Amino acid sequence: MTSSKDKQSELAICLVSGGMDSLVSAALAKQQNQHLAFLHLNYQQKTERKELECFHKIADHYQVPSELRKVIDVSFLGQIGGSSLTDDGIDVKKYKGDTEEIPDSYVPFRNTHILSMAVSWAEVLGAKHIYIGAVAEDSSGYPDCRPEYYEAFNRLVEVGTKARGIKIKTPLLYMSKEQIIKKAVELNAPLEHTWSCYAMEDKACGVCDSCALRLRGFEKAGMKDPIDYHQRPSFL
Amino acid sequence: MTSSKDKQSELAICLVSGGMDSLVSAALAKQQNQHLAFLHLNYQQKTERKELECFHKIADHYQVPSELRKVIDVSFLGQIGGSSLTDDGIDVKKYKGDTEEIPDSYVPFRNTHILSMAVSWAEVLGAKHIYIGAVAEDSSGYPDCRPEYYEAFNRLVEVGTKARGIKIKTPLLYMSKEQIIKKAVELNAPLEHTWSCYAMEDKACGVCDSCALRLRGFEKAGMKDPIDYHQRPSFL
Repeated sequence: MTSSKDKQSELAICLVSGGMDSLVSAALAKQQNQHLAFLHLNYQQKTERKELECFHKIADHYQVPSELRKVIDVSFLGQIGGSSLTDDGIDVKKYKGDTEEIPDSYVPFRNTHILSMAVSWAEVLGAKHIYIGAVAEDSSGYPDCRPEYYEAFNRLVEVGTKARGIKIKTPLLYMSKEQIIKKAVELNAPLEHTWSCYAMEDKACGVCDSCALRLRGFEKAGMKDPIDYHQRPSFL
Repeated sequence: MTSSKDKQSELAICLVSGGMDSLVSAALAKQQNQHLAFLHLNYQQKTERKELECFHKIADHYQVPSELRKVIDVSFLGQIGGSSLTDDGIDVKKYKGDTEEIPDSYVPFRNTHILSMAVSWAEVLGAKHIYIGAVAEDSSGYPDCRPEYYEAFNRLVEVGTKARGIKIKTPLLYMSKEQIIKKAVELNAPLEHTWSCYAMEDKACGVCDSCALRLRGFEKAGMKDPIDYHQRPSFL
């Protein structure tokens, strides 16, 4: 008979945005852990409804029970950058393409907020691992995406939590988009339930930066993206 | 002529709850820094209206301009602990006395959330120091209040921010309540604009744990608490 304590030690929390990276991160967590809990952060961005739908479809796929799904509204993070002094010394990530909004503007130290929520929840649930689909390549210039950052964060968790042994896992840190897509296929992860487009929700626009990056990844991987697009960028 | 860059480097962010510890922490920040910015976190606790009033009175005292005062609703932190699995392995801080609510129940890793907001804002403002009135003595059993925790957090800030040199300052870490009160008097800090009571807002109840701790501190310091009480606990 397995005790409740043993079961908990096999529980991992996955940060699941609804994008491909978090899907593959969750698929890798599933390989290593018996049970998964899914955490989704809502920034009140334009395509949140669609991303939340993907979150639940991915959760259904991995049979995550409803009590182990959590959605937290983190739109307060936008307030922090809303200062009149914001102009000085802050980089706002530029999105080209036809998106009118910047859905996910640069919030300094943002990953610490995100990971902290996962750590708090991990202590409550008794989970030992937290999976985040961070990709170092995507995040040049973001200091809170580098390997040293995750090392320092794991140290903070070690000294700052009561539960012993909670660890952040970043299995995608050194992967390219092409490798991530290939890994998704290998693991039979439901790419059809992911969303990357910043601009639209019925079909992906196909021309925003995020769609372009995704489609280029499928092109390089020699695969067909299973989701529908309004149009395809000229390079394809 | 001082450049805008120089001015920013003299800016410190103070976490100001409206209690005595944060007042003294801010008073010490004022000694060391030319300009202060004040950050207040609203947990939607019973006495928040009163604490927010104290926050603004303390901010007025230290001439903090309105654009350098920020209030963030962090009641979402309560959600994280709201799991059906909460029972197992979580310590909820017990309050005795006649309070009916637990206004500030234990959220694992909570200080990381609080400090991260201050760090994000520090990067936006160009502030170099963040003052928190953490007291190690008060927080036995809370791993995210220990000196090692602050060391690890400072390391995380070092690797996780673009701005160089942001540091968390914990000037009260090794002080007793008595010493904090004496320091407030020494620095002419407005103790009359602080609030500690968990239960009431018109006058302090005088009997909840927080009132008792405060009154005992004044007793030991040989000072009279300048705020009004409904009653005094029996030990006085």
